[in-house]
Amino acid sequence: MGLVVQKYGGSSVADAEGIKRVAKRIVEAKKNGHQVVVVVSAMGDTTDELIDLAEQVSPMPTGREFDMLLTAGERISMALLAMAIKNLGHKAQSFTGSQAGVITDSVHNKARIIDVTPGRIRTALDEGNIAIVAGFQGVSQDSKDITTLGRGGSDTTAVALAAALDAEVCEIYTDVDGVFTADPRVVKKAKKIDWISFEDMLELAASGSKVLLHRCVEYARRYNIPIHVRSSFSGLQGTWVSNEPRGDQQVEHAIISGVAHDVSEAKITVVGVPDKPGEAAAIFRTIANAEINIDMVVQNVSAASTGLTDISFTLPKAEGRKAIDALERAKATIGFESLRYDDQIAKISLVGAGMKTNPGVTAGFFEALSDAGVNIELISTSEIRISVVTRADDVNEAVRAVHTAFGLDSDSDEAVVYGGTGR
Amino acid sequence: MGLVVQKYGGSSVADAEGIKRVAKRIVEAKKNGHQVVVVVSAMGDTTDELIDLAEQVSPMPTGREFDMLLTAGERISMALLAMAIKNLGHKAQSFTGSQAGVITDSVHNKARIIDVTPGRIRTALDEGNIAIVAGFQGVSQDSKDITTLGRGGSDTTAVALAAALDAEVCEIYTDVDGVFTADPRVVKKAKKIDWISFEDMLELAASGSKVLLHRCVEYARRYNIPIHVRSSFSGLQGTWVSNEPRGDQQVEHAIISGVAHDVSEAKITVVGVPDKPGEAAAIFRTIANAEINIDMVVQNVSAASTGLTDISFTLPKAEGRKAIDALERAKATIGFESLRYDDQIAKISLVGAGMKTNPGVTAGFFEALSDAGVNIELISTSEIRISVVTRADDVNEAVRAVHTAFGLDSDSDEAVVYGGTGR
Repeated sequence: MGLVVQKYGGSSVADAEGIKRVAKRIVEAKKNGHQVVVVVSAMGDTTDELIDLAEQVSPMPTGREFDMLLTAGERISMALLAMAIKNLGHKAQSFTGSQAGVITDSVHNKARIIDVTPGRIRTALDEGNIAIVAGFQGVSQDSKDITTLGRGGSDTTAVALAAALDAEVCEIYTDVDGVFTADPRVVKKAKKIDWISFEDMLELAASGSKVLLHRCVEYARRYNIPIHVRSSFSGLQGTWVSNEPRGDQQVEHAIISGVAHDVSEAKITVVGVPDKPGEAAAIFRTIANAEINIDMVVQNVSAASTGLTDISFTLPKAEGRKAIDALERAKATIGFESLRYDDQIAKISLVGAGMKTNPGVTAGFFEALSDAGVNIELISTSEIRISVVTRADDVNEAVRAVHTAFGLDSDSDEAVVYGGTGR
Repeated sequence: MGLVVQKYGGSSVADAEGIKRVAKRIVEAKKNGHQVVVVVSAMGDTTDELIDLAEQVSPMPTGREFDMLLTAGERISMALLAMAIKNLGHKAQSFTGSQAGVITDSVHNKARIIDVTPGRIRTALDEGNIAIVAGFQGVSQDSKDITTLGRGGSDTTAVALAAALDAEVCEIYTDVDGVFTADPRVVKKAKKIDWISFEDMLELAASGSKVLLHRCVEYARRYNIPIHVRSSFSGLQGTWVSNEPRGDQQVEHAIISGVAHDVSEAKITVVGVPDKPGEAAAIFRTIANAEINIDMVVQNVSAASTGLTDISFTLPKAEGRKAIDALERAKATIGFESLRYDDQIAKISLVGAGMKTNPGVTAGFFEALSDAGVNIELISTSEIRISVVTRADDVNEAVRAVHTAFGLDSDSDEAVVYGGTGR
């Protein structure tokens, strides 16, 4: 039996009862002969409460002190979890990100892991301990300051530790049973996926699926660490994410892995752009200089009569104000007519490696939307994904129609409530 | 202008408003030209809430994980305080005990500081920062584990940092105006003491005064760091504790500094001890082996007829059960007749260096008690302190009578509410 890394999100350790339940599950893995490393998030709403406090003393809290504050959350949950495990008669030690050797860059509030040196974890494991590690946090290589990894950071901590410790598997425990063919809150007949490739999972994560974040899956693929996403409540087998399915993993050779949707984006249209070389570059250089990540881009065919064209792109709603401001400031230099901002859009994506060899997928996708009376505003594709932008009001109906059209519906209604995992 | 260390207790930073108020006070000191190091406790009831949580997951939480848990409290308050100071336009950085170089032994939950290496604090100060340091915590020299210093630990952190940084003064901000001639909750006419010597303060702390703990005063005396105990609410001058009063410090050359009382002790009487060499030693070796600290000891004159004597001693009530158990187990070996346990006692102490040269103090003390109808059960003295044990019911009346008899009453009633400072 090898080493297992388990990650528990905030909803799994929301109160003392949750911590005791999780402690029992951890001890089971230890009893089964595994060495066990546990990564834990802050309890329930702790992080939000700390952010509230910060906003009460300072209007725009950021940076070093904000990270120092937030990391108190995992410190509490990890110490309590270690106590609960000891109370079950097993040895446990908790470690901060710094103590666990999670070395990051110095970008506070969204640091990136640049190295993991888990010497103290190894020693603790060799001495028979279960090691409990604070998720979401690290220490900067240069300044030795405490950093946090941003949203979904605890999952990344878990995968990074699994890679550094050469773990058999990284188990991500959450409040849903796994990754589904669509958001079960929208599609009642969505099915749990038993196995999915890293590539398809990356596309789903990039397209709005919130179970695993893109950065975490990317890390797991780079180091070839199988991820097992499962519920800390039910104990059922969840979804395996890996390069290849194991012999006992059921894989339906479907063309499509799943339908993802995302209502967190907005669309900006730059109207009346002179159709000449360098114009599009000037627009996106302006956006990039404002440190805004964009998603889809479409340039309309130029109207021959005017020599002007429109360029549309999507971006996170939260960045909308900043992008508009940056473009307005550059209006004279770039030379466009006006800006249109639209935050009532949704993105719907169909993901699956099978579409590479099945030319009819795009047509089927558009037909399903058309039959449901859903208008398509933008289109973007990769080798294994097709995404469209529609009106936000149409999103639920569109997702259901596509899910049905590609034969993804299960025979029975699933009774799962889908929720975010916080960090 | 030199370096000032300021310590704020949990009641001073109980909520966002408190943190903002304290931030303003800190910035004032900085504006006055001082380098400022701030030691802060956990906010209000945070520590108690964390202890509650710990008890919910584990019946007797102690040790390494308990320290990891509790230190989350200061992490929150120090980060918020640094943010609040930045919001006032001043540079601030927060440091954990470990980052501040507070090195301790490995005794979890009540570690002792063995070294302070404040290199990062020095650097932060030299760069124009106000340095905020988590009180109550350190890092163990041997295992590099997080430790806590036990009750009153933040005061000790402050004094230890003041010594290591060669500070002008260590200001202890609390919710009372200073050290009083008696507990103002008991004696309405108690007076604030403007200056008191380390020696007298040590005796008051050992005798039940809760404003400063013994360990903190001891540390300050060893390194000759003046302490200024004052209110974070009123801004008034408080009580200076030092070797010698400064020229501008008002000192009343009273014989007596103050009257302290303590109702936290119990009395054990070992009845029918053979009056021969080695018997007392056997009793107190038994107690010492159980790691119980005792306070006062009295051996009665032996009754000639029986050759038996009684030995009484006082000890913290919390240790009572353990002491009785240890003595019962050793009964056959030691050879006493029986044990009596009494937790309805109070200790009243009169403290003042002046009593060394004023032989009438003891007599005056006993006369005051006698006039008030208070019976004395045990007596113990040092060069600058006389303590008696009385019935617990008599304590308030006894303290008031003694306070009046030694001319300590102020002309007006003070309107101060006296409270513990938590850590």
